[in-house]
Order: sequence, then C-alpha cells, then structure tokens
Amino acid sequence: MPDKPAPDASRRSEKSRRAIYAAALALVAETGYPKTTIESIAARAGVGKQTIYRWWPSKADVLMEAFLDLGEQAAARQGDAQGEGQPDGIPDTGDLAADLKAVLRATVDELFDPAFEAPARALAAEGVVNEQLGREFVAKLLQPQLELYVRRLRSAQDAGAVRPGVDPRIALELFVSPLAQRWLQRTAPISYEYTDTLVDYALYGLVPR
Amino acid sequence: MPDKPAPDASRRSEKSRRAIYAAALALVAETGYPKTTIESIAARAGVGKQTIYRWWPSKADVLMEAFLDLGEQAAARQGDAQGEGQPDGIPDTGDLAADLKAVLRATVDELFDPAFEAPARALAAEGVVNEQLGREFVAKLLQPQLELYVRRLRSAQDAGAVRPGVDPRIALELFVSPLAQRWLQRTAPISYEYTDTLVDYALYGLVPR
Repeated sequence: MPDKPAPDASRRSEKSRRAIYAAALALVAETGYPKTTIESIAARAGVGKQTIYRWWPSKADVLMEAFLDLGEQAAARQGDAQGEGQPDGIPDTGDLAADLKAVLRATVDELFDPAFEAPARALAAEGVVNEQLGREFVAKLLQPQLELYVRRLRSAQDAGAVRPGVDPRIALELFVSPLAQRWLQRTAPISYEYTDTLVDYALYGLVPR
Repeated sequence: MPDKPAPDASRRSEKSRRAIYAAALALVAETGYPKTTIESIAARAGVGKQTIYRWWPSKADVLMEAFLDLGEQAAARQGDAQGEGQPDGIPDTGDLAADLKAVLRATVDELFDPAFEAPARALAAEGVVNEQLGREFVAKLLQPQLELYVRRLRSAQDAGAVRPGVDPRIALELFVSPLAQRWLQRTAPISYEYTDTLVDYALYGLVPR
C-alpha cells in the first residue's frame, strides 16, 4: 500500500494521471503498441517512471485505463449535450429500430473522433496479433459495450419485438460487426445511411415477408 | 524486360518463386509486417535480393502475391477434394441458406488453417494502422471474395428469394462481418453452428414474421 497522501497529493496525482493518460494515448497512436514503453510514456508525461509503476503493473494496464477514461469522458460530454446523463445504456423508447439507429449513429461519430481513432486503431491492430492483449481489451472494453446491446435486445424480446428464439449475443453482431469491419479494414465507406440500413436489414431480414 | 529465359530457367524460377512466397509468409507471421524486409525474405529463401527486386517492386507486392497464391492453392485443394473445381464462385443450388452456410463453413476451416492464420493476422493487423496497405489488400484480396457474395445474392434476388430493394453489398455483411470480427478481435468463439445461425438470422430477420 502507498503512504496515505498528503493534502495536496490527490490534486497533484490527478494532474499526473491525466498527463500519463494523454502521453500513453499519443504515443501508441504515433508509434504503435510494441514501441510504446513505460519509459517513453513517463518522459512524455514529464513524470518519473516510478510514478507509473506505482500505479500500474504494465503498459497494457496504463493504456487500458487511458482508453477507458477516454470513453468515459466522451460519454460524459454526450450526457452533457443531451442535458441529462444516459452514459450506461441504450435508450429504450419502445421503438427498437430507432433506438439502435441512434446508438449506431453515435458510434459512427466516436469512431471518427480524432482523439479516439488513432489510439483505437493501434490497440485494435495489436489485439489482432497479440492474443493476450486482444482478449484483455475485449473483456474490459468491448464486452461491456456489447452487453448493452444484449440488454436492449432482451428487453425487445420481452416486449415481443424480437423473435423469442433469437440469441441476443449473436443478433447484435448483425449490425455491430459490419460497422466494426468497415472501420477496421476500410472495406467500404461509413455513413448514417449505411448504419440505418444495417438495422433495417437485421430486423426485417433479407428474404421477402 | 528480362532476357528470354533459358530452357531450365522457368523451372528454376518457379522453385525460387515458391521459396520466396514461403519465406515472406513465414517472416510476416513471425516478426510482423514492419520488420519483414526484402533482405530478410531473400536471406530466408536462399536467393539474392536482386532476384526479388527483379520480380516485385516492394515487399507489399511480394506479400500480396504470396497470400493470393496461398488462397489459390487452398481453392485448388478444395476443388480436388470435391472431385471437381468450383474455385471461383459460391454454389447456386437454388437454396440460398444452404449455399451460404456451406461457404461460411469452408471459410471457418480456412481461418483456422495454420498456414493461413498467422500471416493473415499479421497483414490484417498492419492494414488496420497502415491505410495504404489496408486499402490495397482489401482491393486485391478481400473485395474479389465479397464480389462472389454480391453475385450469389443478386441471383437470389432474380429468383425472388431476396427482397428486391436490398443492396447485396450491404446485405452480405450481415453474415460475413460477424465472422470476420470474431476472428479478428476474438470477441467470441467460432463454430459451424454459429455461422449457420448468422445465415438464418440474416435471411429471416430478428423481428417476428
């Protein structure tokens, strides 16, 4: 356990923590995951590397927390913009298509946010070839987001708006994964019209009714 | 233009070409795209680097051809196993669901083929952060495969088995992209049962009929 902080320490710590997050995200975006080190993060943040080792066991942990913090800040800004916070869920207005379209449009905005895109790409790329890191990032960052779709689809199932036999964990991939692949692999352009279309196809199917 | 080959040269060239492909795929799998160089490929293949420069302008081109060749060999083996070649298309038996399930099951096998997986991951990872390489690989490797799904879905549209207003280029992503994301990001396990379910959900939709 570290010593009990002196009165000024928590404010000083918060400032250091912000500087470390910013340095970690900038470095991974600029040089990639393998070349980002605790030493380079410390140098860029203007702190000693012992400061980093005191709080995080590894660079993967620093990056994961920095990235989680980025997401929380974006959610807080979005909450502010909406006049009320709805950071931890997908809206449930009773109109499943409208709710999914709204959350996918917000995801499109986030994917092209310059503060998000470069570090997200660097970490995603590393996760493709580094199984341990990939699994850790999925568990801590991606899975909690996918869980929100599972909850929204279950609620739609309860309301009779989704077929009873459908597995929500697979169903969400019909609209989430196409957007993810277009973003990761740049297979085709991304627009609101595109994500709206994904929701319509997923909900109503491709074969004639 | 190179000199006209001597009688033995084409056989010798073919052997060198195979050695260069194998070296390129092994190196990118072991060390990643950035550390794979023309020099290291030449050394591993036991050829002079001028031999490589004579045939390919860059390491990206060597890797792309090596990877295309890997796909062609897998298709040829599959054709042999089936007793007849159907290398360049998705079967059209008139049963869209069955045809899509069959081709996705074959894709699952390919994704976990040890000869394919490591170089494919290394190149996919590089494509996420290297836009030029990513776009080139999509255009030359991925797009031709996606085009096969577009053709199969158009034929289903002509037969009345897919709604007339559906855009086949988007529709194919409902079953192709979920598999791609589970493979790239390891978000959840992959099985034949999973890809079969994707086809059923995509064709019949999530909302009750």
